[in-house]
Amino acid sequence: MTRKVGVIGLGNVGSAVAQQIITNGYTDDIVLIDENVDKVSADALDFEDAMENLPTHTNIIVNDYAALKDADVIISALGKIKLSDNPNGDRFAELPFNREQVTKVAEKIKESGFNGVIIAITNPVDVITSIYQKVTGLPKKHVIGTGTLLDSARMKRAVAKGLDIDPRSVSGYNLGEHGNSQFTAWSTVKVFDTPIEQLAKERDLDLDQINEDARVGGYYVMRGKHYTNYGVAAAAVRLAIVVLSDARQVLPVSNYREDYGTYLSYPAVVGRDGIIEQIQLKLTSEELDKLQKSAEYIKEKVEQSN
Amino acid sequence: MTRKVGVIGLGNVGSAVAQQIITNGYTDDIVLIDENVDKVSADALDFEDAMENLPTHTNIIVNDYAALKDADVIISALGKIKLSDNPNGDRFAELPFNREQVTKVAEKIKESGFNGVIIAITNPVDVITSIYQKVTGLPKKHVIGTGTLLDSARMKRAVAKGLDIDPRSVSGYNLGEHGNSQFTAWSTVKVFDTPIEQLAKERDLDLDQINEDARVGGYYVMRGKHYTNYGVAAAAVRLAIVVLSDARQVLPVSNYREDYGTYLSYPAVVGRDGIIEQIQLKLTSEELDKLQKSAEYIKEKVEQSN
Amino acid sequence: MTRKVGVIGLGNVGSAVAQQIITNGYTDDIVLIDENVDKVSADALDFEDAMENLPTHTNIIVNDYAALKDADVIISALGKIKLSDNPNGDRFAELPFNREQVTKVAEKIKESGFNGVIIAITNPVDVITSIYQKVTGLPKKHVIGTGTLLDSARMKRAVAKGLDIDPRSVSGYNLGEHGNSQFTAWSTVKVFDTPIEQLAKERDLDLDQINEDARVGGYYVMRGKHYTNYGVAAAAVRLAIVVLSDARQVLPVSNYREDYGTYLSYPAVVGRDGIIEQIQLKLTSEELDKLQKSAEYIKEKVEQSN
Amino acid sequence: MTRKVGVIGLGNVGSAVAQQIITNGYTDDIVLIDENVDKVSADALDFEDAMENLPTHTNIIVNDYAALKDADVIISALGKIKLSDNPNGDRFAELPFNREQVTKVAEKIKESGFNGVIIAITNPVDVITSIYQKVTGLPKKHVIGTGTLLDSARMKRAVAKGLDIDPRSVSGYNLGEHGNSQFTAWSTVKVFDTPIEQLAKERDLDLDQINEDARVGGYYVMRGKHYTNYGVAAAAVRLAIVVLSDARQVLPVSNYREDYGTYLSYPAVVGRDGIIEQIQLKLTSEELDKLQKSAEYIKEKVEQSN
Repeated sequence: MTRKVGVIGLGNVGSAVAQQIITNGYTDDIVLIDENVDKVSADALDFEDAMENLPTHTNIIVNDYAALKDADVIISALGKIKLSDNPNGDRFAELPFNREQVTKVAEKIKESGFNGVIIAITNPVDVITSIYQKVTGLPKKHVIGTGTLLDSARMKRAVAKGLDIDPRSVSGYNLGEHGNSQFTAWSTVKVFDTPIEQLAKERDLDLDQINEDARVGGYYVMRGKHYTNYGVAAAAVRLAIVVLSDARQVLPVSNYREDYGTYLSYPAVVGRDGIIEQIQLKLTSEELDKLQKSAEYIKEKVEQSN
Repeated sequence: MTRKVGVIGLGNVGSAVAQQIITNGYTDDIVLIDENVDKVSADALDFEDAMENLPTHTNIIVNDYAALKDADVIISALGKIKLSDNPNGDRFAELPFNREQVTKVAEKIKESGFNGVIIAITNPVDVITSIYQKVTGLPKKHVIGTGTLLDSARMKRAVAKGLDIDPRSVSGYNLGEHGNSQFTAWSTVKVFDTPIEQLAKERDLDLDQINEDARVGGYYVMRGKHYTNYGVAAAAVRLAIVVLSDARQVLPVSNYREDYGTYLSYPAVVGRDGIIEQIQLKLTSEELDKLQKSAEYIKEKVEQSN
Repeated sequence: MTRKVGVIGLGNVGSAVAQQIITNGYTDDIVLIDENVDKVSADALDFEDAMENLPTHTNIIVNDYAALKDADVIISALGKIKLSDNPNGDRFAELPFNREQVTKVAEKIKESGFNGVIIAITNPVDVITSIYQKVTGLPKKHVIGTGTLLDSARMKRAVAKGLDIDPRSVSGYNLGEHGNSQFTAWSTVKVFDTPIEQLAKERDLDLDQINEDARVGGYYVMRGKHYTNYGVAAAAVRLAIVVLSDARQVLPVSNYREDYGTYLSYPAVVGRDGIIEQIQLKLTSEELDKLQKSAEYIKEKVEQSN
Repeated sequence: MTRKVGVIGLGNVGSAVAQQIITNGYTDDIVLIDENVDKVSADALDFEDAMENLPTHTNIIVNDYAALKDADVIISALGKIKLSDNPNGDRFAELPFNREQVTKVAEKIKESGFNGVIIAITNPVDVITSIYQKVTGLPKKHVIGTGTLLDSARMKRAVAKGLDIDPRSVSGYNLGEHGNSQFTAWSTVKVFDTPIEQLAKERDLDLDQINEDARVGGYYVMRGKHYTNYGVAAAAVRLAIVVLSDARQVLPVSNYREDYGTYLSYPAVVGRDGIIEQIQLKLTSEELDKLQKSAEYIKEKVEQSN
């Protein structure tokens, strides 16, 4: 009965999510929620001023949790971090503030009767996704974090640039925490149906450089503009559309893995029922070690946040 | 030979323009230009990080005026204004700073050999459009300001809300300066093929209220978030697409009218050759007076800016 | 809960409707229904073969009426007419065959528990829309015919060509039966905010020619390719999107008018609840006469079809 | 300077190509060419009747080869085949008729001064692509056949169905002639980053069945509706957009391979300059044999067609 998406948090990320959704006409209804009533009302009015010059119509609802009851997807984009508070680029610096906010929001989502899929962008995303799941009581498969869908996109951008091709023609995954312990599982990365490590030798690609580029890409953006938004917004919007259209794409997102006992990013089949199927990559033992360490880091932080 | 658009100024407005263009895949190439190299480079990288998760590919070129040579359209979104500097909401407060910047930019555009259409958003837009035309030496019909395309959208939003219909089902125009002297030409406004003044009586609509709403709409948004961007970005992007696809739509934009001796907003047929045809509305004498005054106000400001 | 649309009848029109919906990614689910199992299965497989090369995912369901239960919109595109059977271009030549088919289909729709909006394309559309409403028992406002939305588009195309502008910059309506008794209500047609009759004098436009062009446009197309599909498909898809997104646009569609005692085309506000509001144009007495005659012609045919 | 695409041949395939391009607003100008003046004129008028109800404007030019001079891409969709003439589903049954037509068309393209990229759909596509290249004298890299981009999509559809995932989450290629000698290079097919042959064992997938399904998919569609169009139209339109936007995607298309001395389908990097880079897969010796045989079959047919 029509597409309805909620966006919680209208900062730089949430606004970019909303603009992408509205200017593309991806949903019929969009519910915008933010504690800063002036900001979210201003954005809503600004979007309504855009409507006449857009090809599609979107109904905009402001700060009404009850309207989330029959939403298909909620995108959590709340959270604030100042570069000055976070000189080492550690997303966990954002945790104390965001944990409290997210808990409040999750309780209101629960009260609304929402029973769709939550897509969390808020950092540290693996911990936050876990909090959303616990507080709302939604099935684990219905709460997803954008996780390394963004880091994988950054890795593909870096690899693609080295080869002068489209990032969509690079396959492979970044895994683990969406944070400093994430890593590119190079054994999964292929271009021209050739393992990247082999291709790197043939073409003198510096994988360490690309790895570093993917890992710190976000911090370059943050240094330049004091926030990042377009990359992660595109990841969240893609995820939302995949859920809405039940596309069943294999995407590296933060999902709860029993084998690691935590939310962490690992490819899964995503559709209308959230995480439709979990898969098993054939990783190297070195990659398995990194993933284990990343998982333990997240679990530790989840426990600290209880 | 593919669609190429330049965006000059990557502040809140220019970034919103770029996001709308890139996430919709409206162009093949986009040239992003800003004096703040860190900001524009960060935005470009952020957009490239989005690419893998978008359905379309856009080539992003940064700070290269030479790349504008074969662009179809340049959107000027530069300019900064702080609310604190402008307590009365007068867009002319922005003139001294923007005039100097625009002159520099226009000279570089000229040097590039660009011979497409310039769409100016920068305020005060009627004066700025005039400066772009003079400095680049482009034909008057190839330099257009977004002008009251935004104010008309705001008027339509306000009228549509009163009647609970889509703003696209309201016809009519705001005319004159994109500033305090602009006005809704109510004689042109129709809904259900009925003059709005007649409909207002039948339905107890308060036109003065709607008029005020359209006139100050932007300032409400500005108070809420300290800038406005989505409404004007949508207007500029629509204009750009109308030019690219030679759509020949009748739109109220800032165009040079010989009869008023200045750039000011008045509906015209817009297409690939810019202002394809100027039209003549049947305005009331009161509206003609307002338009004359608005024109004189702009002319005075243009002269002062020489 | 996601966008779901049914298309009944996969002939030239239904296939064009389905292609427009699928290649634009307008819905999440599409239900394709046709008595010719080989044809509809072939189209479905062909669309699935397209999926990998499209930017969006659509779930395709074939010949399952039960799947219509929670659909938002059903588009009826069934019906066949051969030019040789219909030398005078009278859409009523299609009635005997289509009435029987539509009755069967409407019963199955009713059984499915569908409670969304039906959009009928099947000709003679005003009668067929009436049959759908009666048999399904849906509220009159939830059964709509594309009607003169197509004729109005043809009129706008003809007027726009004469003035070398975009058809979207022409306002006005064709009214009455979607058939030989329909007519352009010239008093409603405006370009450049000027009544077309005044503009025609100023510019030597031949309105009789344009009128004829709009009226017989479909038959030129039919003579050239033995069917018409793209124009009417675009009208139906636009209507479907307006319903899905609750856009509340004013569109000339076939809707039940108490004042005429029949379905006939007259502008109405269209949204998620179907016909949201009926409006009253200020027609000339000549136009009112034509409309009355057109209404009587439809009523007579509806009675004959009982 | 805006996007301009030509479509030659407005049969079932060419019409579907044109509808997808126009309803998505993918180009600014489209040139439609067909010997059947009535049919192409009817389609053009039908598309113009759609315009008012579409969100985008496309300029439609009919039967004007001179207008191809500055087109970016020409899509060749001409050619006719009746099922009754081709009981064994051999695309070479179409050669005698299509060769003659294509030669005429190619000469006219040459005369027009066109220097963009030709995308051939016309069958037998590898031979026809070769004829286009020879007659126009365009660089080999600027003449591309849709080739096994469609067969690969069919293979992915079949694999994806078996695993209940999106075809876009299957990687791999069908290679060789777009005809009976084409084959799925199973060594290149991966899902969940796992070789399909391994996954097939784990999940009891019948690869022979999938192989057959991909190979004969088109004939099932043809039996059901006497032609195939949506799958191949989507492949051609995707290719056109990849060329326009210089996306540099790796796609299995018919391109001239020096190592095989013929046009045949093999993945290559496709962009604005046509075939940007040819790559080298790591095929099994069995696959190499099949490819060699397929290449020889094509070469033989090319020689016979001289």
